[in-house]
Amino acid sequence: MKRGLFITFEGPEGAGKTTQLELAKKWFDRQNIPTILTREPGGTPLAEQFRDIVKHYIGAEPLTAASELLLFEASRAQHVANRIRPAIEDGVTVICDRFIDSTLAYQGYARGMDFTLIRDLNQFASGGLLPDLTIFLNITPEAGLQRTLSRNAPGADTDRMEKENMMFHQRVYEGYHAIAAADPKRVKIIDADAIQSVIHFDICKQFTPLIENHFGVKVK
Amino acid sequence: MKRGLFITFEGPEGAGKTTQLELAKKWFDRQNIPTILTREPGGTPLAEQFRDIVKHYIGAEPLTAASELLLFEASRAQHVANRIRPAIEDGVTVICDRFIDSTLAYQGYARGMDFTLIRDLNQFASGGLLPDLTIFLNITPEAGLQRTLSRNAPGADTDRMEKENMMFHQRVYEGYHAIAAADPKRVKIIDADAIQSVIHFDICKQFTPLIENHFGVKVK
Repeated sequence: MKRGLFITFEGPEGAGKTTQLELAKKWFDRQNIPTILTREPGGTPLAEQFRDIVKHYIGAEPLTAASELLLFEASRAQHVANRIRPAIEDGVTVICDRFIDSTLAYQGYARGMDFTLIRDLNQFASGGLLPDLTIFLNITPEAGLQRTLSRNAPGADTDRMEKENMMFHQRVYEGYHAIAAADPKRVKIIDADAIQSVIHFDICKQFTPLIENHFGVKVK
Repeated sequence: MKRGLFITFEGPEGAGKTTQLELAKKWFDRQNIPTILTREPGGTPLAEQFRDIVKHYIGAEPLTAASELLLFEASRAQHVANRIRPAIEDGVTVICDRFIDSTLAYQGYARGMDFTLIRDLNQFASGGLLPDLTIFLNITPEAGLQRTLSRNAPGADTDRMEKENMMFHQRVYEGYHAIAAADPKRVKIIDADAIQSVIHFDICKQFTPLIENHFGVKVK
């Protein structure tokens, strides 16, 4: 049995990740490739507890930037060891909403935390697991936040990242471009300022050679 | 105003830390030096949540060694930023039950995790804060566990560390000795296989020059 593939989706707020992840899952289902959708932070019961803190913690005590980073990595360690790796080794392809590149873009480029430390922590928490393919949904922060705002009902619960200012989101955006430029073989840039079906089509063009090559099947 | 001192207590299970921490607090009170007692993991509301997971988590999903380490460090980041540093800067002396040396002894020496990573994480989470004095309560694992067992009622709730085997506790013990040998100026070894009043007396002998030197007062 061939191991499953590991595919991650990255991008700023409002890039349309959720929609494209669901379309991607349906595409894999049509190819009869066993696939699961999962997300970071989270993906296991304990990791979802950590997600809840980093996304929605409000309390008298400030959540420090250091703790935020460490919780993201603790979530990753649980997720990789207890869900992603077992699935892949079981022949199941894993499609994950955010992974190590998010940590580098948000905590590294946007929050300004040390890159070497983040890379060491990414390596440590993931046990060195790298995606076979990363889809970077490319949209400017202005266009992305516009979408987020129109999606969220007035008074809706925005999370801690969405509440950051435009400068923060600009640095996330530039971070993603730097990451993609440094690893063009793994990270594919997809124009996300387009209609859903076009974005989906562009993503599938990235899936096709990978699937045909890895599983030795012909894509339908 | 002089900043407060930062003093940590370290040692294996059953070394009598709790008793000695309380005696130490009373000693500082008698000297009219404003002092708080705190502990790791924990020490703030959010850090106590992380403590609860690392000490008492039981669930279908295994808590990985990596997550355990990351949660200890997340707890530390919260604790140093939101409680220890503000107190010290406010002139309050902080006495803390366990700190960075526990992580090196338990996760490094006993669990075998990478020392460089642990040191980097200790530095990151504490923002480089080092204790002015560390009291290492020295007791062999055999004698320490004997005390823990006689202290705990039959069927009492033992935590995840106490449940580890004798080899694990032996490595913790050796780890503490290596840490003390590497930093003899900061870490003072106190024989903890003695009666409480003698141990307390030996600890106070370490406090006296530190207090007289730092606060310019004469110890009563």
